Amino acid sequence: MSKGIPKRSEDYSLWYNEIIKRADLAENSGVRGCMVIKPYGFGIWEAMRDQLDRMFKQTGHVNAYFPLFIPKSYLSKEASHVEGFAKECAVVTHYRLKNAEDGSGVIVDPEAKLEEELIVRPTSETVIWSTYKNWIQSYRDLPLLINQWANVVRWEMRTRLFLRTAEFLWQEGHTAHATSQEAIAETRQMLDVYARFAEEWMALPVIRGVKSESERFAGAVDTYCIEALMQDGKALQAGTSHFLGQNFAKAFDVKFATKEGGLDLVWGTSWGVSTRLIGALIMAHSDDQGLVLPPRLAPLQVVIVPIYKGEEQLAAISEKVAEIKQALLARGISVRYDDRDTERPGFKFAEWELKGVPVRLALGQRDLQNGTIEVARRDTGEKQSMAADDNLASAIEALLADIQQSIYEKALAFRQENTHVVNSWDEFTQVLEEKGGFLLAHWDGTAETEEKIKEQTKATIRCIPLPGQLEGTQEEGACVLTGKPSRQRVVFARAY
Amino acid sequence: MSKGIPKRSEDYSLWYNEIIKRADLAENSGVRGCMVIKPYGFGIWEAMRDQLDRMFKQTGHVNAYFPLFIPKSYLSKEASHVEGFAKECAVVTHYRLKNAEDGSGVIVDPEAKLEEELIVRPTSETVIWSTYKNWIQSYRDLPLLINQWANVVRWEMRTRLFLRTAEFLWQEGHTAHATSQEAIAETRQMLDVYARFAEEWMALPVIRGVKSESERFAGAVDTYCIEALMQDGKALQAGTSHFLGQNFAKAFDVKFATKEGGLDLVWGTSWGVSTRLIGALIMAHSDDQGLVLPPRLAPLQVVIVPIYKGEEQLAAISEKVAEIKQALLARGISVRYDDRDTERPGFKFAEWELKGVPVRLALGQRDLQNGTIEVARRDTGEKQSMAADDNLASAIEALLADIQQSIYEKALAFRQENTHVVNSWDEFTQVLEEKGGFLLAHWDGTAETEEKIKEQTKATIRCIPLPGQLEGTQEEGACVLTGKPSRQRVVFARAY
Repeated sequence: MSKGIPKRSEDYSLWYNEIIKRADLAENSGVRGCMVIKPYGFGIWEAMRDQLDRMFKQTGHVNAYFPLFIPKSYLSKEASHVEGFAKECAVVTHYRLKNAEDGSGVIVDPEAKLEEELIVRPTSETVIWSTYKNWIQSYRDLPLLINQWANVVRWEMRTRLFLRTAEFLWQEGHTAHATSQEAIAETRQMLDVYARFAEEWMALPVIRGVKSESERFAGAVDTYCIEALMQDGKALQAGTSHFLGQNFAKAFDVKFATKEGGLDLVWGTSWGVSTRLIGALIMAHSDDQGLVLPPRLAPLQVVIVPIYKGEEQLAAISEKVAEIKQALLARGISVRYDDRDTERPGFKFAEWELKGVPVRLALGQRDLQNGTIEVARRDTGEKQSMAADDNLASAIEALLADIQQSIYEKALAFRQENTHVVNSWDEFTQVLEEKGGFLLAHWDGTAETEEKIKEQTKATIRCIPLPGQLEGTQEEGACVLTGKPSRQRVVFARAY
Repeated sequence: MSKGIPKRSEDYSLWYNEIIKRADLAENSGVRGCMVIKPYGFGIWEAMRDQLDRMFKQTGHVNAYFPLFIPKSYLSKEASHVEGFAKECAVVTHYRLKNAEDGSGVIVDPEAKLEEELIVRPTSETVIWSTYKNWIQSYRDLPLLINQWANVVRWEMRTRLFLRTAEFLWQEGHTAHATSQEAIAETRQMLDVYARFAEEWMALPVIRGVKSESERFAGAVDTYCIEALMQDGKALQAGTSHFLGQNFAKAFDVKFATKEGGLDLVWGTSWGVSTRLIGALIMAHSDDQGLVLPPRLAPLQVVIVPIYKGEEQLAAISEKVAEIKQALLARGISVRYDDRDTERPGFKFAEWELKGVPVRLALGQRDLQNGTIEVARRDTGEKQSMAADDNLASAIEALLADIQQSIYEKALAFRQENTHVVNSWDEFTQVLEEKGGFLLAHWDGTAETEEKIKEQTKATIRCIPLPGQLEGTQEEGACVLTGKPSRQRVVFARAY
């Protein structure tokens, strides 16, 4: 099965596409820039969504649903917001089709033109804040802690499965608060939720930081983000949490009666992660044999393959497998018995390897006699023989936890190896060309310098890391490009 | 709180709108025909979705996601399908905004016109079957059992919260099979899933039947449906399951290599339920005091209200409540302790009554002394004092089950009282005017007669009931309008 997958070292980009195709995760649709998420890929998204949803609810949020369409006038109310999204808006202008009079087929009915054009939401701040205006009168109505799971559309010209598609699935939290401090605390709390999700569920180490002004969300005062490193040394932004200040409250005139009897503008946040995370998951962990999935997000955690000759052997094996399966299911471990008689074991091994199933069990006639079973872990390829007794299920459970941890540690070690402190412009350009990865460099804090560095190297500031995130970043120095004073090192990288 | 809700008997339509508004379920947005589903309403949808999703998975289906946009040419491929949806299609024609040159604001960029217009999906048969063409080559690829949770858009001119909105949330199953028999069995299986969900979860009795030709889904060979009766005597279609024959396989050229070595067109089904079910839930069970929710779908099943004077009493009550809450949560019962100090108990009682919380517990100083608690059920309004001991949680669990059953039985009794066998045209019109409800009448099987009856009475054929659904329908007779022979009685009603 794995024959024909290009090696990561040869063509990373093609490797990524082939993994997605062969592991049956997604494909391009006939609709420009839009993908079809296939059942196996959607299973990963369901696991992500379920866990994130639990974490949002644990932090006091509730779900709601707001309209897909945004009147053009709403989008225009916050100046920098519309500026940021205008170039990628899908616009609905008509509401009816009709048969062409010349019989040439179905056409858009020119008489069914909308009075005001509707934008397919690229994000929902405007439609949500226009609603919040009616929901918020007094400090008693605050905080308002709402999340939405939805599809959004950004008309990107160059698309890539999961990483950048015209339509994608995401969640967007939109909260409203009485004070700036509360809103900032919410922004930081959700950044932490994302970071914990990335590290504990995706097994993906991330740097928590703040964006520079030029990378800030259109309409935000501050954009916090988590940044991860992919195996080709490029960075990927895995989630953002925005402190909106009073920008959207101003745009939609959302005020509240304070406890003290005054009238104030409301403070806001928004935060989101998307199906892009599936792209990050693939790029961070998978290898030349196919997908590698962390057990906590794998749609299928264990597969069992029988090794047999003839019906009689199969029957005996299947009986033992039924027992094992039951014990695994009882521990909440998802398991499939692959007893297809149309394929040989070797084919099955390769297929499940390609699909990244964390643990593969194989059971043959000799195992039955010895009371053993072959246990293979996907991440390292290691095989061992275990006793197929009452302790097997708990051993598998422990193995899954170990795999989860190992995948994280491997990714963390990779990031550490590929994070470089650079102190001069020569060093910056040389390390970027030769090694890639995260470059910790001093920057003078101006958009002008940031832009020059981007023009010359294609590297951007991924984030200004928060204290405690990366050793040695919280020190003063001189900008690698201009030599002007710098308050701390920032993270540069080429990015997806 | 309930002051000002109109009575059902006075203005059913206004009553419905007020329930939605006051129970915080949803509201109209600033976007024509699109609603905002508020957190409490969305909680009901989450409960519905989670259970339906379990039932779909138990019957072997998996979830996937297909594009929001459908190229106009796809939609046009199945003639009766496009005919059915053309009049309500939202059409995307452009993909960019820009600043007007005269400085008047943001306009649609006329240069960013799409080569082919995109329809916002009103349903996904076409985009999905265009994908299935690549997924299905051989009988080994069948059956394909896929479901999608999504938003869809139908540009309705007259909208109504939950019942008919321009955008709504739904699930749509799309399956592909090797034989007609298999596809029909799938269609029927999903009809049964919907009926079981309606009856066991929504506490809503439904009639399983087949649609007459004129009410059939555009592109289907047969449309099966479940029909429910609302408290105003009007019918509501609560779910449909379509046998598509080979219509979409033909339109998109989806063929498979048979076991026998031939090449055949694939057989299809599709089936869906939507946020409309929330409208059905409200209309079927709620009363003049507010929402009545079946416990299995209530976002909150139990609310506990303290009755106290002073901090000291509250502290003692809260300690006891913590115990009770823990015991309820341990049984998977959702519970909220409403200890707001800004509202009086009477206000809280009315609020939770309005919101349809199935069970309300009230605990005061005297209860504490006597070891009792007041238990009120929302559906009947009955109150009783129970021992607040170790058996309380299991008693509440049993009560919730009893409420679920009672609500169903009440709705069933209502339907039975409002289902009328009519044998002549006079009787048909008289019963329809005076009583409404379901009319079981003979019909000659022609679209012409159906249309005449609709014109004269606004009643339509809700369904041709399946055998075993309604007593006395499986007998021959003479059409109420034309006197021509009829093979069985069908169900007429005015409908939402």
